Amino acid sequence: MASKLDEVVSLAKRRGFVFPAGEIYGGTRSAWDYGPLGVALKDNIKREWWRSMVVTRPDVVGVDTSVILPSQVWVASGHVSVFNDPLVECLTCHKRNREDKLIESYAEKHNDQLPENGLKDIVCPNCGTRGNWTEPRDFNMMLRTNLGPVEDENSLHYLRPETAQGIFVDFKNVMTSSRMKPPFGIANTGKSFRNEITPGNFIFRTREFEQMEMEFFVAPGQDEDWHQYWIDARTQWYLDLGIKPENLRHYEHPKEKLAHYSKRTVDIEYKFGFQGSDWGELEGVANRTDYDLSAHAEHSGEDLAYFNQATGEKYIPYVIEPAAGLSRSLMAFLVDAYDVDEAPNTKGGVDKRTVLRLDPRLAPYKAAVLPLSKKPELQEVAQNLAADLRLNDWMINYDESGAIGRRYRRQDEIGTPLCITIDFDTLDDQAVTVRERDSMKQERVALDKVADYVRARIEDKHTRVPLKPVALGGKEWPESVHIAEAGGLY
Amino acid sequence: MASKLDEVVSLAKRRGFVFPAGEIYGGTRSAWDYGPLGVALKDNIKREWWRSMVVTRPDVVGVDTSVILPSQVWVASGHVSVFNDPLVECLTCHKRNREDKLIESYAEKHNDQLPENGLKDIVCPNCGTRGNWTEPRDFNMMLRTNLGPVEDENSLHYLRPETAQGIFVDFKNVMTSSRMKPPFGIANTGKSFRNEITPGNFIFRTREFEQMEMEFFVAPGQDEDWHQYWIDARTQWYLDLGIKPENLRHYEHPKEKLAHYSKRTVDIEYKFGFQGSDWGELEGVANRTDYDLSAHAEHSGEDLAYFNQATGEKYIPYVIEPAAGLSRSLMAFLVDAYDVDEAPNTKGGVDKRTVLRLDPRLAPYKAAVLPLSKKPELQEVAQNLAADLRLNDWMINYDESGAIGRRYRRQDEIGTPLCITIDFDTLDDQAVTVRERDSMKQERVALDKVADYVRARIEDKHTRVPLKPVALGGKEWPESVHIAEAGGLY
Repeated sequence: MASKLDEVVSLAKRRGFVFPAGEIYGGTRSAWDYGPLGVALKDNIKREWWRSMVVTRPDVVGVDTSVILPSQVWVASGHVSVFNDPLVECLTCHKRNREDKLIESYAEKHNDQLPENGLKDIVCPNCGTRGNWTEPRDFNMMLRTNLGPVEDENSLHYLRPETAQGIFVDFKNVMTSSRMKPPFGIANTGKSFRNEITPGNFIFRTREFEQMEMEFFVAPGQDEDWHQYWIDARTQWYLDLGIKPENLRHYEHPKEKLAHYSKRTVDIEYKFGFQGSDWGELEGVANRTDYDLSAHAEHSGEDLAYFNQATGEKYIPYVIEPAAGLSRSLMAFLVDAYDVDEAPNTKGGVDKRTVLRLDPRLAPYKAAVLPLSKKPELQEVAQNLAADLRLNDWMINYDESGAIGRRYRRQDEIGTPLCITIDFDTLDDQAVTVRERDSMKQERVALDKVADYVRARIEDKHTRVPLKPVALGGKEWPESVHIAEAGGLY
Repeated sequence: MASKLDEVVSLAKRRGFVFPAGEIYGGTRSAWDYGPLGVALKDNIKREWWRSMVVTRPDVVGVDTSVILPSQVWVASGHVSVFNDPLVECLTCHKRNREDKLIESYAEKHNDQLPENGLKDIVCPNCGTRGNWTEPRDFNMMLRTNLGPVEDENSLHYLRPETAQGIFVDFKNVMTSSRMKPPFGIANTGKSFRNEITPGNFIFRTREFEQMEMEFFVAPGQDEDWHQYWIDARTQWYLDLGIKPENLRHYEHPKEKLAHYSKRTVDIEYKFGFQGSDWGELEGVANRTDYDLSAHAEHSGEDLAYFNQATGEKYIPYVIEPAAGLSRSLMAFLVDAYDVDEAPNTKGGVDKRTVLRLDPRLAPYKAAVLPLSKKPELQEVAQNLAADLRLNDWMINYDESGAIGRRYRRQDEIGTPLCITIDFDTLDDQAVTVRERDSMKQERVALDKVADYVRARIEDKHTRVPLKPVALGGKEWPESVHIAEAGGLY
């Protein structure tokens, strides 16, 4: 039987959320393309993130930095030397594997026992030969390219593996031109690239992916309070947009496994339901200390300290980084919204229906306009209504094919919150029937009130949120942010 | 004296629209970063494009395709064999140059005469040696990278030089999943990469840049009407967003110089005021015929024809492509909006002021909130007002530093349409003074009416536009689209 995850992937493909990139050429697991519904969902998620992180905050500004930066950036950040996975090659079949994954999968099959003789005990998953491995070799995960007419060391550049470094490199330019001072943040979204050895799990692990990162610069000593603040704020964001609390948990990185720049990192994980392991990282919230700014100050020779003219105080800010995966969020929102329930059919019984219970802010189409028949007088009213609603910058679907019940199902399956049916009475009473996705309730609404009706049901329910840690004078988060009882903190 | 273009570039850097990427490491001309104001302007342009091309049109859907596609895509499209510039290398200093550019600049210096003996007459611009050149060699403009653990021919991939091919490759998946049929379009935006030999002119020619492309699929025979329709529609878009007609012109590509896929191409050019040549391409509108779909059908073995079940008709659609440069549009909107006029000063005279007359839809900040003094009671009202306005998804600036006149200038310079001043009367009459950017007129507005006041002045003035060519039953464009009298058709 297909798992829920399989069903979501199949729906995503069939209805045009996500396609394998280059499928007519056999496709690639490196990247996926977003179809008409996927690009709408992705843009809506990105817009909600940007709204909550930049637009509604007086203390965060945005940037959009380049994919290709000077190589020195990646030397300073440690990515050239550290950002790699040890690989071993099978001397029989020459297939390379991640050493840690080989050992992990050995342990899984042997009651959590590690191989006594190391690699000598491990069988090549490709050709079956035992213990015929090279020494582990570092494999840099950054993709390389050459800029300019000559291919040499000077022309070697890397595609960014994260958007964060663009922020650090622009820190001074942004602080000066926008007159910000700590505590303040810089947000950045865009494509990043990592040469993953084993891309997989749909859009969860790909070589090309999209990130939403923010670096929040604070005075040393305030970093721990702000770190907890951002863990809470980011958790609340997922909950506000409808992710079920039982499908979220926090993973506290053990001290001995922290990345080279981190003082403390907490991941927000989602219960994707992968084979083998249910949970996957949605977002990491790290206390990066002053590691990055100090490294770039040292390598570039620029003074990247913040100087407070009023107090004479000078320091390299500490940095709190909530780093979210946009592609992964999209997958989580799809999986979380996916539901199967029952809907009445025309024979007085019930049928199964698939419904995406997406928050209306995220739903690709805000409404669908459905003329009951293909009669030109109904088509004309329906097409005019759709055209008028679209002027509000709402994606509006128009569908005139098939029985009305089937058309409702098509809209349910892609998460359209409202279906607006134009019937023969419409020509007399200038009103339409609006059906709500989740309750399936129907209401008669005057044609000239439809836009207001839609607006009231899809509009943003944004309210002001706490803007700083309690310890620094901020307000408490709502209780819901404490998800330890659900997936839990582990 | 600095040219207007120099002044715009300097303003862009100083106020945080655009920074050189990796400036602390000496920068690069390959790419530029967008600061807090630049990312807002860029997103607003992109949103207006998407709104006019996708959201408000029943006949266009969107996608977001990968930067890295299977290599076969670029073989089929002709980019591997055709997309290159002939380079010659100076045998003395080993510097490579574009042959056509060398010849062009020779002609410029010699009364438009071409070199009689070809390259033998041409002096190396780098070392001064005459005529010591290699044969021209093709230089592919696509950036290359290797995916996966092994670097070999199979792992070789290209970064896309255009977003268009992603559309062609997904054509069938999109048509099927979204149930569209010709005439219909697919829109795509995102980063593209070209290994330009001589990047330059600020963000006009860079190796990393952003595009907004749409492929419109029509029945053969309707292609010429639709081509003219899209030339008109795209010209009207720039005019609607405030570009002055005298700064736009159309360039009709001569038949003998058309790209390998094109039946006819018209560029929309903007008068940037570059040194040497004023005009630069903003957007190309090409009739790509059935070249791309046919090529992909042949190389992939997939049937990419459209089959009309009702009529039994089957054909490979012709394609009209309006391909806009987002980075170039941003530059054009900045240059076009830049103005210097006079504003009254406190001494009863006038001072020069710099003002960006951006359309409010494009302006990074929709309004600025300015407490007249730093008194806490004014700050509180001002900060609350700013926070409430931000909940409408408007970027709102807050500025409490310096004399009010200076603060007005700061907002004028970045194009903020409205300045809202909170003064001591506000505490009594619960009203504020709103100043308009262009007229500098001031009006007193009740605090609880400010949001409505702002909304009325920045809201979209979108109306329904002609949706098809006149010859196919569409309406006429407004007269303004005919810009032949201005820059003209040449």
